[in-house]
Amino acid sequence: MCADEAGAADAGARRRRRGGRAGGAARRPAVEQPPFRQYRLSYPPTPVVSTDELESVHESALQILEEIGVDILHDEARALLRDAGADVAANGGRVRFDRGLVEWAIRQAPSEFTLHARDPAKSLRIAGETTAFSSVASTPNCACLDHGRRAGNMADFETFIRLGQMLTAVQLWGGYPTEPADVHPSIRHLDALHAILTLSDKALHAYSLGETRNLDALEMVRLARGIDAATLDREPSIYTVINASSPLRLDGPMLAGALAFARHNQPVVLTPFTLAGAMAPVTIAGAVAQQNAEALAGLVVTQVARPGAPFVYGGFTSNVDMKSGAPAFGTPEFMKATLLGGQLARRYGLPYRASNVNAANALDAQAAYESVFSLWAAVQGGANLLFHGAGWMEGGLCASFEKMVLDADLLGMVGAFLTPLQTDADGLALSAVREVGPGGHYFGTAHTRARYKTAFFGPMISDWRNNEAWAEAGRPEALNRAHAIYKALIAGYEQPPMDPAIAEALAAFVARRKREGGAPTDF
Amino acid sequence: MCADEAGAADAGARRRRRGGRAGGAARRPAVEQPPFRQYRLSYPPTPVVSTDELESVHESALQILEEIGVDILHDEARALLRDAGADVAANGGRVRFDRGLVEWAIRQAPSEFTLHARDPAKSLRIAGETTAFSSVASTPNCACLDHGRRAGNMADFETFIRLGQMLTAVQLWGGYPTEPADVHPSIRHLDALHAILTLSDKALHAYSLGETRNLDALEMVRLARGIDAATLDREPSIYTVINASSPLRLDGPMLAGALAFARHNQPVVLTPFTLAGAMAPVTIAGAVAQQNAEALAGLVVTQVARPGAPFVYGGFTSNVDMKSGAPAFGTPEFMKATLLGGQLARRYGLPYRASNVNAANALDAQAAYESVFSLWAAVQGGANLLFHGAGWMEGGLCASFEKMVLDADLLGMVGAFLTPLQTDADGLALSAVREVGPGGHYFGTAHTRARYKTAFFGPMISDWRNNEAWAEAGRPEALNRAHAIYKALIAGYEQPPMDPAIAEALAAFVARRKREGGAPTDF
Repeated sequence: MCADEAGAADAGARRRRRGGRAGGAARRPAVEQPPFRQYRLSYPPTPVVSTDELESVHESALQILEEIGVDILHDEARALLRDAGADVAANGGRVRFDRGLVEWAIRQAPSEFTLHARDPAKSLRIAGETTAFSSVASTPNCACLDHGRRAGNMADFETFIRLGQMLTAVQLWGGYPTEPADVHPSIRHLDALHAILTLSDKALHAYSLGETRNLDALEMVRLARGIDAATLDREPSIYTVINASSPLRLDGPMLAGALAFARHNQPVVLTPFTLAGAMAPVTIAGAVAQQNAEALAGLVVTQVARPGAPFVYGGFTSNVDMKSGAPAFGTPEFMKATLLGGQLARRYGLPYRASNVNAANALDAQAAYESVFSLWAAVQGGANLLFHGAGWMEGGLCASFEKMVLDADLLGMVGAFLTPLQTDADGLALSAVREVGPGGHYFGTAHTRARYKTAFFGPMISDWRNNEAWAEAGRPEALNRAHAIYKALIAGYEQPPMDPAIAEALAAFVARRKREGGAPTDF
Repeated sequence: MCADEAGAADAGARRRRRGGRAGGAARRPAVEQPPFRQYRLSYPPTPVVSTDELESVHESALQILEEIGVDILHDEARALLRDAGADVAANGGRVRFDRGLVEWAIRQAPSEFTLHARDPAKSLRIAGETTAFSSVASTPNCACLDHGRRAGNMADFETFIRLGQMLTAVQLWGGYPTEPADVHPSIRHLDALHAILTLSDKALHAYSLGETRNLDALEMVRLARGIDAATLDREPSIYTVINASSPLRLDGPMLAGALAFARHNQPVVLTPFTLAGAMAPVTIAGAVAQQNAEALAGLVVTQVARPGAPFVYGGFTSNVDMKSGAPAFGTPEFMKATLLGGQLARRYGLPYRASNVNAANALDAQAAYESVFSLWAAVQGGANLLFHGAGWMEGGLCASFEKMVLDADLLGMVGAFLTPLQTDADGLALSAVREVGPGGHYFGTAHTRARYKTAFFGPMISDWRNNEAWAEAGRPEALNRAHAIYKALIAGYEQPPMDPAIAEALAAFVARRKREGGAPTDF
C-alpha cells in the first residue's frame, strides 16, 4: 500500500517545512495549508442564457414531465405519487407529473440547510451563497505514482480517507473515494462507513442501494455523532446522491434509499447523468431540459415522502466524443450545461451541485485544464456543493492520490479567488504609494512588511523557481510534487479523537449487522 | 531546428487525420481545427468589487496622478503634457495630472477600433463585445520537446511564426514570440517584422524602442498591405504594447514609439507591470490603483499627441512569491486583479487587454492550471485583447512550441464556451425526447445523426480513450500529443500569398534600411 511507505519529500514539500530542533520546537505540519473553512460565492453567477431562454428550458422540462413522463421503478414511490395526484400508469413504471404538483414540490424544498459533521467545526452550510468541496467518489480503480493503477480495495480506500482528512480543502466526503471491492457487497457499507466515521470527522455520504443500507447509515451516523433519533431528524447529518438512469428513469434501489433519507430529513442530491448524444439529446439545451425533468421528478418523490426534506439539484450534463462514444468532461459543452443547471437551480431556489471532473488518463496538462474548466463552470454557475472536488480521473473510472492533492490545491486557489478584495484605505495603500513614489520599490515598506506573510495564497504544488534552480532540483513536475505532499500528509496523519463509548457502540453495531448478514445484494 | 524535422504524428494527431487514397482524395489538413473567427464575449463580465468600491479605486488612482504624479521620461511628451495643462516639474521628469485632463483624455479615446491584417479576413475588432487572441511575445528563451530549452534565435522565431500562422486560434501577433537575439538589435526589427509580414498574414505588433523602429514598422506594414499613407492613417494596422516602468514611470524609448504610433492613429496598449509586493503595493486593490494611475497617464500622453488615437487599457497586475520574490502568474490574486482591471476599463469605455500566463517550467499540470485560471479571469473580466494567448511559459522567460499548440486548443475551447447555446425548438429537442422516451438511447435518432459531427467542440489534444486503449498506445501525455500536432502543422505549413511587387518593395525597404544601419541602439 502506498500509505504504508515512508514518504521522501522532494524539494516541493521540503521548502514548505519549517525548521525545528530535534525534540525541541513544537511540531509544525509538514505541509502548509489554509485552514478548513467554507467560502462564500462572492461574485454574481454567470447566466449562460437569457431569462426568456431559461423559461423555455423550464417549460420544455414541464412538458416532458406532463406529456412523456418518467419511469419510477419503485412501487412505494409510485403509490406516494398517485396519492399526491400524479398520473401513474396502471402497468409499468410510467408516471406523468402535472405542473401544479411540480410547482408544489419546488415550494416545499428548503433553499438551504446545514449538513452536520462529527466535528461541529466541519459542519457545512449548503446554501445559495456558499460552496462546499467534496472528495472524489465512486471510482472502480485507484492509482498512485509508486504503484500504478489497480482495482479499488479497502486498504487504498482507507488511505484516501486519511489523505482527505488531512487536506483542509476536502470539506466533506462524496461517497467512497474508491470502491472497496475486496469487501463483500452485503457488508461493504458497514466497513466503509465505519472507516469514514472513525478515520475522519468530516461530513459524509451514503449510497442508496436499497433501504437497508441507508437505515444502517442513519444509525451509524447517529451513534458517531452521539445524538438521539429526534436530533438526527432535526439535523441533516448524512446525504445521498442518486442518479437518474437517464433518459427519464429513476431506479428502485436508489429510490428506496432516497425515500429513507427524505423521510428522516437527510439530504438527497439528485443528479441525472445526461450525456448529450447518448442518454440525452445531442443539443446541450435539450440535454439540460431532460436533466431538469429528471431532477424535478426526483424532487417531487422526496417532497411527497416528506414535504420540506432537504434536496439538492444536481447537474452533470456533459457530451460524448462523437467519434468513439467515450464520455468527455470539462469540455465547453460541459461548462455551458453547468452554468445552465445553476440558472435553473436558482430559479427554483434549490441548492446546486456541480462537479470537478476530467477524462484524462495521466495527471498531465489535460487533467489540469479539464479540471479547471470544470471549476470555472462550477464557480460561475453558483455551485453550492462541488462533487468529485478532489481526486477524480479518467471520467470517474479512477481516483488518484496525487490528483486529490493537486485538486485540493486548486480548491484552495478557488477559495482565495472567492475571498473578496480589501478596498479600504489599507487595501488601496495610497500612503504606501506616496512613500515609495515613482521608481521606488515596495519590498521594504512597512505596508508590505506588515502583510507579506499573508497577502497571497501560498499553493502547495506550484513551483515558481526560475529554470536554473528548478533544473538543479531535478526538474520536478506537478505530479512529483503532489506525490511528495501526499506522502508527507499520510506520514503526518492524525486520527481525529472519538469518545471511547461512541467508538465501542459504533463497532458493536457494525459487528451485529455483519453477524446478521448485512444488507441484501439482490437489487 | 525543430521546424526542419519530419514530424511523426502520434495517435493523438493521427486519429484526427482523415483517410484518402494515395494520390486520390483532395488534400485534407493533418490537424482539424475550428475556422479562424473572433468570438463575442457572450456572457456578462464578473465584477470583483461593488460600484462604490470601484469608484474608490478610481479615486485613488486620480489622487496618485494629482498628488504624487508620474515620471514621464521623454522631453517631447512632457512638453505636450505641459501644453495640455499638466503640472510638469521644471527639473526631472515628474508630471502631475489634474482630473480634468484625465477625464478629457478618457472622453477622447475610442471605445473600439478595427485592427487591419494583411489578409482582410483576419482583421480584428478590438471592442467591448469581442475578444481577440494573440501569440506569446517577448520571451528570451524558447523550448521544444526534441531540443530542450535554448536562447531565442531567428530560426526558432520563424518556426513560431509558421506555427502561429497555421493555428487558427492564434488571431494576431503579440510581438516576437521569442527574441531573435542572434540578429543585431539595430536591424532586428527589420528582419523580424519582415519575417512576420511574409510568413504570416495576421495582424501584428511592433515594439516601441525609440521612434525610428516604429516609423520603420509603419512603412513596412503600409507596403505589405499595399495602401497609401492616408489609408494607413484611417486604418489601424499595427499596434504596440508599452509597459510602465512601475512604479509610476514611463520611459523614453517606449514613449517615443507610443507617440509615433498615436500620431499615426495606430493603437497603443499601455500595460503597467505592477507586481504586488515588488513594483506595487502588496495589496491587490492598491496595486491595481497604481496600475490604473499608470495606464491613465499613458492614455493622456497618447491623447495629447492625437486626440482619438486608439488606446487599449492593459492589466497585468500579479503577485510575487513572498518567500523568494519570484513573480507568480495565474494565481488567485492575478485573477482578482484581472477582473478589477476589466471593471476599470469598462468604466472608462476603453478596450481591455489581459493575458494567458503561467510560471511553470514544464508543460505539466501547473502550466495548464495557471493558464486556465488566467483564461477564466480574462474571459470573466471581459478582455477584448488576450495577450500572450498561446505559448507563454516560465513567467515569460520561455516560449514553448508545444505550449503554443496546447494554448491554441484551450483558446478553441474558450471560443466554444463563448458560443451561445441554441435554445429554439431544435435546441430544446423535445421531439427527440418524445421519440426516445424513458430508457431509450439517442445515438441513432435523426436529431442526433443530423448534428453529431458538429454538435461538440473537437479538441486537438484531449485524449478521451479508456485507460486500456491509452496504455496500448504508449501512454501519450498532453505534451506528447501537442508535440506531434506541432510537427504536423509545421510539415503542412503553407506560406500565405503576397503580390510579387509588394514582396519586392518590402524586401527593398528592408535592404535599404539595413544599408543605412537600421535604428539606434543607444537607448
